[in-house]
Amino acid sequence: MSKKTGSFTLPGEAGYEKLTLELAEKWGADVIRDSDGTVLSDEITKTGYGIYSTICIIRDHNEWAKKHPDKLQQTFLMSDPVTAGSGDSVLVIRPLSGYFTEQFRVNDSADSIRYWQVFDRTADIEVDRSKWAYNAASGEVTINDCVPYHSYTVNFLAFQIWEQISMYNHVTNNWDKEHLMPIDPRTQECRDYMTKWFTDWCEAHPDTTVVRFTSMFYNFVWIWGDDERNRYRYSDWGSYDFTVSPKALDDFEKEYGYALTSEDFINKGRLHVTHMPPTKKQLDYMRFTNEFVVGYGRELVDIAHKYGKKAYVFYDDSWIGVEPYSDLFPKFGFDGLIKCVFSGFEARLCAGAKVDTHELRLHPYLFPVGLGGLPTFSEGGDPALDAKKYWISVRRALLRQPVDRLGLGGYLHLTEGFPDFVDTITGIVDEFREIKELHADGGVYTLPIRIAVLHSWGSLRSWTLSGHFHETYMHTLIHINEALSGLPVEVKFISFEDILSGSEKATEKCCDTTSCCGEENGSNKEDQAAEKKNMLGNVDIIINAGRAGSAWSGGDAWNNPELVAKLQKWVYEGGIFIGVNEPSAVSDSMYGFAMADVLGVGLDDGARVCHGKWTFDIDKELAERVFVENGTKKAANGSGSDDVKLPCKPDIYLTDGKAHVLAEKDGIPVFTMHEYGCGKGVYLTGFEKNNTSTRMLLNLLMAAKGLDKEQNYITDDPDTECAYYPGSGKLVVINNSEVEKHTEVKTEKGTIGFDLKPFETKIDKI
Amino acid sequence: MSKKTGSFTLPGEAGYEKLTLELAEKWGADVIRDSDGTVLSDEITKTGYGIYSTICIIRDHNEWAKKHPDKLQQTFLMSDPVTAGSGDSVLVIRPLSGYFTEQFRVNDSADSIRYWQVFDRTADIEVDRSKWAYNAASGEVTINDCVPYHSYTVNFLAFQIWEQISMYNHVTNNWDKEHLMPIDPRTQECRDYMTKWFTDWCEAHPDTTVVRFTSMFYNFVWIWGDDERNRYRYSDWGSYDFTVSPKALDDFEKEYGYALTSEDFINKGRLHVTHMPPTKKQLDYMRFTNEFVVGYGRELVDIAHKYGKKAYVFYDDSWIGVEPYSDLFPKFGFDGLIKCVFSGFEARLCAGAKVDTHELRLHPYLFPVGLGGLPTFSEGGDPALDAKKYWISVRRALLRQPVDRLGLGGYLHLTEGFPDFVDTITGIVDEFREIKELHADGGVYTLPIRIAVLHSWGSLRSWTLSGHFHETYMHTLIHINEALSGLPVEVKFISFEDILSGSEKATEKCCDTTSCCGEENGSNKEDQAAEKKNMLGNVDIIINAGRAGSAWSGGDAWNNPELVAKLQKWVYEGGIFIGVNEPSAVSDSMYGFAMADVLGVGLDDGARVCHGKWTFDIDKELAERVFVENGTKKAANGSGSDDVKLPCKPDIYLTDGKAHVLAEKDGIPVFTMHEYGCGKGVYLTGFEKNNTSTRMLLNLLMAAKGLDKEQNYITDDPDTECAYYPGSGKLVVINNSEVEKHTEVKTEKGTIGFDLKPFETKIDKI
Repeated sequence: MSKKTGSFTLPGEAGYEKLTLELAEKWGADVIRDSDGTVLSDEITKTGYGIYSTICIIRDHNEWAKKHPDKLQQTFLMSDPVTAGSGDSVLVIRPLSGYFTEQFRVNDSADSIRYWQVFDRTADIEVDRSKWAYNAASGEVTINDCVPYHSYTVNFLAFQIWEQISMYNHVTNNWDKEHLMPIDPRTQECRDYMTKWFTDWCEAHPDTTVVRFTSMFYNFVWIWGDDERNRYRYSDWGSYDFTVSPKALDDFEKEYGYALTSEDFINKGRLHVTHMPPTKKQLDYMRFTNEFVVGYGRELVDIAHKYGKKAYVFYDDSWIGVEPYSDLFPKFGFDGLIKCVFSGFEARLCAGAKVDTHELRLHPYLFPVGLGGLPTFSEGGDPALDAKKYWISVRRALLRQPVDRLGLGGYLHLTEGFPDFVDTITGIVDEFREIKELHADGGVYTLPIRIAVLHSWGSLRSWTLSGHFHETYMHTLIHINEALSGLPVEVKFISFEDILSGSEKATEKCCDTTSCCGEENGSNKEDQAAEKKNMLGNVDIIINAGRAGSAWSGGDAWNNPELVAKLQKWVYEGGIFIGVNEPSAVSDSMYGFAMADVLGVGLDDGARVCHGKWTFDIDKELAERVFVENGTKKAANGSGSDDVKLPCKPDIYLTDGKAHVLAEKDGIPVFTMHEYGCGKGVYLTGFEKNNTSTRMLLNLLMAAKGLDKEQNYITDDPDTECAYYPGSGKLVVINNSEVEKHTEVKTEKGTIGFDLKPFETKIDKI
Repeated sequence: MSKKTGSFTLPGEAGYEKLTLELAEKWGADVIRDSDGTVLSDEITKTGYGIYSTICIIRDHNEWAKKHPDKLQQTFLMSDPVTAGSGDSVLVIRPLSGYFTEQFRVNDSADSIRYWQVFDRTADIEVDRSKWAYNAASGEVTINDCVPYHSYTVNFLAFQIWEQISMYNHVTNNWDKEHLMPIDPRTQECRDYMTKWFTDWCEAHPDTTVVRFTSMFYNFVWIWGDDERNRYRYSDWGSYDFTVSPKALDDFEKEYGYALTSEDFINKGRLHVTHMPPTKKQLDYMRFTNEFVVGYGRELVDIAHKYGKKAYVFYDDSWIGVEPYSDLFPKFGFDGLIKCVFSGFEARLCAGAKVDTHELRLHPYLFPVGLGGLPTFSEGGDPALDAKKYWISVRRALLRQPVDRLGLGGYLHLTEGFPDFVDTITGIVDEFREIKELHADGGVYTLPIRIAVLHSWGSLRSWTLSGHFHETYMHTLIHINEALSGLPVEVKFISFEDILSGSEKATEKCCDTTSCCGEENGSNKEDQAAEKKNMLGNVDIIINAGRAGSAWSGGDAWNNPELVAKLQKWVYEGGIFIGVNEPSAVSDSMYGFAMADVLGVGLDDGARVCHGKWTFDIDKELAERVFVENGTKKAANGSGSDDVKLPCKPDIYLTDGKAHVLAEKDGIPVFTMHEYGCGKGVYLTGFEKNNTSTRMLLNLLMAAKGLDKEQNYITDDPDTECAYYPGSGKLVVINNSEVEKHTEVKTEKGTIGFDLKPFETKIDKI
């Protein structure tokens, strides 16, 4: 295959055979796929292209499902609370009231009711089982001996009677067809059925070269309400709640030696959102389910392989038990991972997974409307512009770490009115192939900056928090991950447990002097070496970024003096701890941040409202180093560049007055740097991803690490970036903006200027 | 005395006898006082005016203090934290490091060191006494066996060697004189000295008719730092920390049967700020001290009385143990309470105290510069305008509840260049006398709205939180108290304990039907009557307003199902619960607000970030009722009037979707009303006091109570207010703005129009 073909998956469409083959030629496709709602004709499948076929193994089995209504997937739900009035010693609750009854049906089998619980939420205590009963005929729970003006809820199990993705498409597009039910492979009976069905399917699809599993068995959690004013009651792209069943819970108890209750899932009606720190029980249950999904998933993959087909999995966005960064993931035996991408962090998520083939499904999909209902391939849409905008987010990530393939999805015929789009994709795919080739010639040049992002989930949730950027934009960390995805630095994701268990390697350097920072060090060298084995030796910078109490900040994990002392030691010996928003936040503590000694700032929960605040001057030299970029007009003053949106957090205060303040808002420091031994604590009130803030972050990383400001292979305009590949001597310069740019890059061979058109990529051998 | 004289206290000044007597005549003074830094000559004291003499009983005794250095007032302090490095198994801490050494001296007596404590703040544990020692010679604490990278602090006792008010004046005015030391009446020896001194003083001041105690013995807490960048390390106008001593603590243990520790005061370095809920130990210690202050204070008052003098106390702002709303306050036997006022809530604080004479000290003081260093009686100052602005805040409160006297303070000669000011005071004093007379003819007309402000301190902190408005502006409640201070409603302040202990009277009315809201009520009437005795029967509206965890919201008090159930019952039977900012906030709970069932809104701590949000429409009818006032252009749309500054709180959400939304910001409800049985829950994200928001609050109170919109004796312009006195048939209309206003008032005899000059008061008989 020539340089200009291959590595691209085209969505084919029966009835548009000519178009399919034309575009396959134009875009240099080597694979043709089907999509939801399309089929491929023989005219397409017999032309020698590779053929992907899409399978969602747990739906489209309504006939079997109707015969086995107890084998549907389930979930715990909590009834809406009902308050007892003065005379209401007896309350009656209809559990499903308020939920979308087309999605759920109460599971009122004896097996299920064992797991139900009733709570007095006002007193925060469980109601004894002797005081309540479920009446199957009326569908009501009756609670006796209620306390007046206390509020009661029922935790119960419900079957999912409409598979949610299908439900969403059905409702959105006003389809008129049978509701698809999700079947649960937890029972042997169901697995036997699915295994046979899949074997038959492989027999019936000889032309298929790749089975594309639309993930495995369990969806993320999406609970609908009956009121259109709150249809999407709950949406968590990382939650395991839709995997429960009496059998799963019974199996869990046998395996883990303790029983889970409904309340372990319901958690006062709040459930356990992925953005909060997981509990031990939650992690146990996830592991239990992850092992189950991998175990049976492997059986299906083996069948595909037996039929000479490859098995790829489509991971969008975290279909349950299929996390690519779980240590169990390689056991699936998948040949490829396909990830739909809007953002750079999603490209890195895909690129870093341990699998042979990494493929990105680009946006926009070939659908009439896109995200939020705006037109794409219909009147008023500009799919070429959309494609360019998504591409510049993804492109910078691919400069750092490559993937193997790109692809599109949807209805190919929709491209017919949009020749601009066709040309844009041609350009993108060509650019992609060139970038891929650069990586093949050796790695990309990276600054000597090794970053660990520290949060409760660690590597399991590398790059993604859960879901897409637009679903998680309220979390500081996704902005940071997105910025990091294209920066010339090393990035990994670690958990608090990683630090405590000492899974990190020995430190490589401390201070230059033997006694760190000139202070006497009384312990002997052997002790130090032994200790360092447990420290973050191969990390230069740790980033902890999130709201207090969240999984991204860490919550109670910080109430551990061992963790704090280890990190303080690491910083003291030269590490850099960057905290953003409410890092290391702990309630009822001296300073509000467990790492306050390092950061030099604290978070007041109101207990310090009578305490004085240190006045400060802006450290202009440091602020200029971080905010100002040569040759740009995006200079910043003490209050920070307008583009670098650092919010005012009135509860932030300087602890010892020694932090350098780089920016302030309304008199409150919003960006600080604090010396701590040989290391530093850096604090920012927030981070909002854009070109300028991304460059500010890079400047900060370089300044904190102590690198000289003048580095090779950094552009001088924040709207542009570059990547240098020493193996081939090639320099890629990209324009991440919609306007023309001139940018200069210092290289080993002198400074080189580039004129770039909007969105343009230029590749020069230097 | 004619109507135009009396009820006014003039600050006299020796050397300006003519001016003193002229202004006494012009302003109709009946009393002349001295001030800090002024004396009265015989020419003044012998003219037949009443004479106030100022006494601060605990300072100006340096000779005695030097002989008794162990009898100075003391406080607990916490050393700044010091972190142990790798080799630092031994740490050395200088306790006073970072504090202003002119204010404090370490008390290193054996008696004192008994109460010292050392803490490992990283591990949050006390260090055993065997592991640390204080070296008096070096002034250092040595701590052994420190854990590397843990942070340590020392709690210690320090003497106050410079009385803080004197220190402030000294430093601010660059005085060059001896530092005054505060002596502590806790020992009999000191009390004997003070008693004799005061007796001698009474003997020596036969012309004095009123002894004006500049409060009693203990100052609010004001801890200075040694660094000018953080001079005021801590300022709490309500704290008792400056009353401690080994003897006080020993006495406490004898009386209460348990010992207090230094950490009970230090609280991880945060101390116990008045704005946070008090602990049981804190309340015990306050009671203990309050009784002591009242006990010895009474002895001094008795001496004054024995000499035929009256005893007034100057309460500014909460000199310790002198809270006018403590049940112990009447035991002092004071004849009068003097309160300096900037605001209406301070006028109400004074007016409501149980004492014969209530006097307000107006601002501005006759000083060259005022608050924040801006000129008043010096070039560039406009003291007449200042006086008018303060007066319009105070005036509206005095229309609701009268005081007996006004007064001024400072250096009278400074008025000489400001004839406008002299005229302004003439007008204010005349207005005041008229208003006072109206009250004497019978009470003011009030709407049938009885409000209880609910917080942790209850009536002890009626009206004030602690300190002036400008010191507490960051707390929502002070804005509400200030608005309420001039509204035609009844207001009281209650604690959670008041509700739990059932100290409130029986309810007067519930719904019109016997079964509340048409629901069957199973309990019999006797049970109901018994229960109602414990309820808030004589209250129509409860307001709970503050930040989560604060004393004003309530903190852990809300983790009490009995409290919640009692309040829910009260609302269900017709009460109105208004929550502002983070009312009834409880962490780790179902909805974030304990009163969420009533309010219909909750507060998300991050655990609900994946939960759906109810969409809503603005209830325009309700919004118009509350926001729009007849005849004004200050209409509001769905997002609330610009003048009614309701902040966006992104974590607020509708719980059941049933709340009426009166205003939103950025898609988040910021003002809601929720039906609950016969009652209502009202929620506002915040409240910022100004004329428009004050009128909005009145409209809200009327609407929530179910009063007709068209009420008598309400002006139709929010910049104006009025008060009607049925006894005399007089209507007072006031202009609270700096511009001319036309306003109309509906009365029993028809609507009357008024044209008002800026700041003007008009009194008409109707």
